[in-house]
Amino acid sequence: MADVYEKTTTAPVNIAVIKYWGKRDTSLILPTNSSLSVTLSQDQLRSKTTIRASKDFKTTRLWLNGVEEVNLENNKRLQACLRSTRLLRKEYENSLSSAGHLNIPPLSEWNLHICSENNFPTAAGLASSASGFACLVYTLAKLFELPTSITDLSRIARQGSGSSCRSMFGGFVAWEMGNNADGSDSQAVQVASETHWPELEALICVVSDLKKATSSTEGMQHTVNTSELLQYRISKVVPKRMHDIEAAIHARDFKKFAEITMRDSNQFHAVCMDTFPPIFYMNDVSRAIIRLITEYNNSGDGTYKAAYTFDAGPNAVIYAPKKNIKEIINLLAHYFPSTLDSNKEYFNDHACLFSAEERIGQLSFPSGFNSQIIPVFPAGSVKQLLHTRVGEGPKILESDESLLNSAGLPK
Amino acid sequence: MADVYEKTTTAPVNIAVIKYWGKRDTSLILPTNSSLSVTLSQDQLRSKTTIRASKDFKTTRLWLNGVEEVNLENNKRLQACLRSTRLLRKEYENSLSSAGHLNIPPLSEWNLHICSENNFPTAAGLASSASGFACLVYTLAKLFELPTSITDLSRIARQGSGSSCRSMFGGFVAWEMGNNADGSDSQAVQVASETHWPELEALICVVSDLKKATSSTEGMQHTVNTSELLQYRISKVVPKRMHDIEAAIHARDFKKFAEITMRDSNQFHAVCMDTFPPIFYMNDVSRAIIRLITEYNNSGDGTYKAAYTFDAGPNAVIYAPKKNIKEIINLLAHYFPSTLDSNKEYFNDHACLFSAEERIGQLSFPSGFNSQIIPVFPAGSVKQLLHTRVGEGPKILESDESLLNSAGLPK
Repeated sequence: MADVYEKTTTAPVNIAVIKYWGKRDTSLILPTNSSLSVTLSQDQLRSKTTIRASKDFKTTRLWLNGVEEVNLENNKRLQACLRSTRLLRKEYENSLSSAGHLNIPPLSEWNLHICSENNFPTAAGLASSASGFACLVYTLAKLFELPTSITDLSRIARQGSGSSCRSMFGGFVAWEMGNNADGSDSQAVQVASETHWPELEALICVVSDLKKATSSTEGMQHTVNTSELLQYRISKVVPKRMHDIEAAIHARDFKKFAEITMRDSNQFHAVCMDTFPPIFYMNDVSRAIIRLITEYNNSGDGTYKAAYTFDAGPNAVIYAPKKNIKEIINLLAHYFPSTLDSNKEYFNDHACLFSAEERIGQLSFPSGFNSQIIPVFPAGSVKQLLHTRVGEGPKILESDESLLNSAGLPK
Repeated sequence: MADVYEKTTTAPVNIAVIKYWGKRDTSLILPTNSSLSVTLSQDQLRSKTTIRASKDFKTTRLWLNGVEEVNLENNKRLQACLRSTRLLRKEYENSLSSAGHLNIPPLSEWNLHICSENNFPTAAGLASSASGFACLVYTLAKLFELPTSITDLSRIARQGSGSSCRSMFGGFVAWEMGNNADGSDSQAVQVASETHWPELEALICVVSDLKKATSSTEGMQHTVNTSELLQYRISKVVPKRMHDIEAAIHARDFKKFAEITMRDSNQFHAVCMDTFPPIFYMNDVSRAIIRLITEYNNSGDGTYKAAYTFDAGPNAVIYAPKKNIKEIINLLAHYFPSTLDSNKEYFNDHACLFSAEERIGQLSFPSGFNSQIIPVFPAGSVKQLLHTRVGEGPKILESDESLLNSAGLPK
């Protein structure tokens, strides 16, 4: 099918350790402070997108997790990404033709069929917009064969969803806030690759919650408009933390990395509390997980063994050295038992940490650990534990992985 | 009994609207910022103390809610109050004798029997140290017949328990942080009397909690030592709020008073969250009360109808104009039903807001109120509603109200 122009790629989720909270420009999505995140393995969490361009398509269409999105023209963030990449494609087409090339397909003018899906339930409350927009922009760049750097592409993804610019790289990624009014220097750069710190792993605790949380897009501007403490965080606290955590990552200094990560998560939720009216994302289960990890770090020889961080919801993400993960899973499973008969559903044990004989939750407390620090919670308070690790950036898949059939519709 | 030297007084509880959190001197109890509180009526909440001085007492003894306290000499805060008042008594005795008076009883040298009790359960988690130390110092001042102003006495009470200095006055009271290293200008002054704003009333929601909260004495110094945001609150936020809320009180401007009160409660809990490791005082029920009051204020004509504030625990104190109290009680009783058969135990209805026919919790939602804002919580999530109002300062009682018998022991 020589005339089929199509690409399929996947992109990862990222979890910030220095939090992004607040825009100085809401249409260009320019943040009030720089942020830094860890890209998680696509084995557990990823978005997958196929985009086909054809002169025969009547309109540009988008299917998200099997459901077609309507009124795409009103989707400002999607249109911003399409406009920017088509513009780059147009320039590329012009440069080729002026260089004497013939028969260059005018993909910049054709309609597109876009099909995207995640390998994790949106119900889990794990931010899917970051991986989704990163995947969209990366697929467009490959389809259009753009001679554009990943950092340049990150500025385009940023206009779809701010934190998606950090999902354009694997490993440890900084989103430099930049200073220019046009956003030309607000972009992602890789601080260290996914192979830099193999001992570091992550555990996602999916926490049940009664109510729908305030959307982060809405919440962060409330904070910008009403929290006096945010201004101090932006100007005085974050710049130093960005510098210090990059140094901790380069040195693989987990104690420093853990302390900054926990402090910044706490301060993010503090400025949410200082918002008027206040915004709450953590619930009593989230706070119990903080108490548990704090006691876990205080037990033993005093070196930190784990670090918690919470985004705009009750779920905890715990970063820890690989050697501690099994102990942490057993602690969590003890205090937050599963309603499920099968531990396999409660705990994603891809790493085979538990042998056939073992059960999750068969607990021997660490020495010096105060087991009364929190009560055992009702079964189901934590719905799932997802064990994952640092992962790589967006990837191109073979054409047989396409999400579209020969007619250009979802398979 | 001409030779019996004894006094009995009562002192009130106060609830801060600009929060005290952090000491710059922990032994003199000098705060990092000024604070402002409302003194609550002693009809619902008060401490009562009888102190007798006698040359026949072998030692100084103290009974607290019926239980004798041992090792009084190790109670630094108690000793500070005794030392300061005895010193003033000694000076007074000297001045009298040098003025030619005879037979001045040397109370400054005699041992004391001190008996104190509260008319509210300590289990309720309502700060009793403020009313307790205010009552101790006021009783000593009366027993010793000290020619000392209430503001001067507040500096002594402050050394027993910081916030107790604000319980030395009725109405609306500011604790000026002062600048002197010796604490000579860190004292309470009355901003407005208990008769200034008769429409303003208060509702205390006693919230059940699983765990014992971090003591405020301990917690506030953790915040001083680890929260970067606290420094900004102290230097930039509180001074303006002190000025603005005093103006709101003088003008009886409830909207302004309510907004500052809610913002300052939120910011106090924000700096607790920014503490490392973080301190949590509010739980899911506390946060649901905030959502409820926020929605209540947003419904109707947009003028605030109530203001919440939370101290170092999950209990809510709601300030509101008298005309709204009944509606607020019905809202709270709907979402936080009682386990008790008798509403009388759940709601302290001293003001007879509900007629014999009416039931608490018979709800007609205010117009424009979104009843889905929070779920109905399990019965007993709020243990009690205490309806009270602005009250007066410490009072002397008649001798027949004494808590001691003729032998100087608790009745």
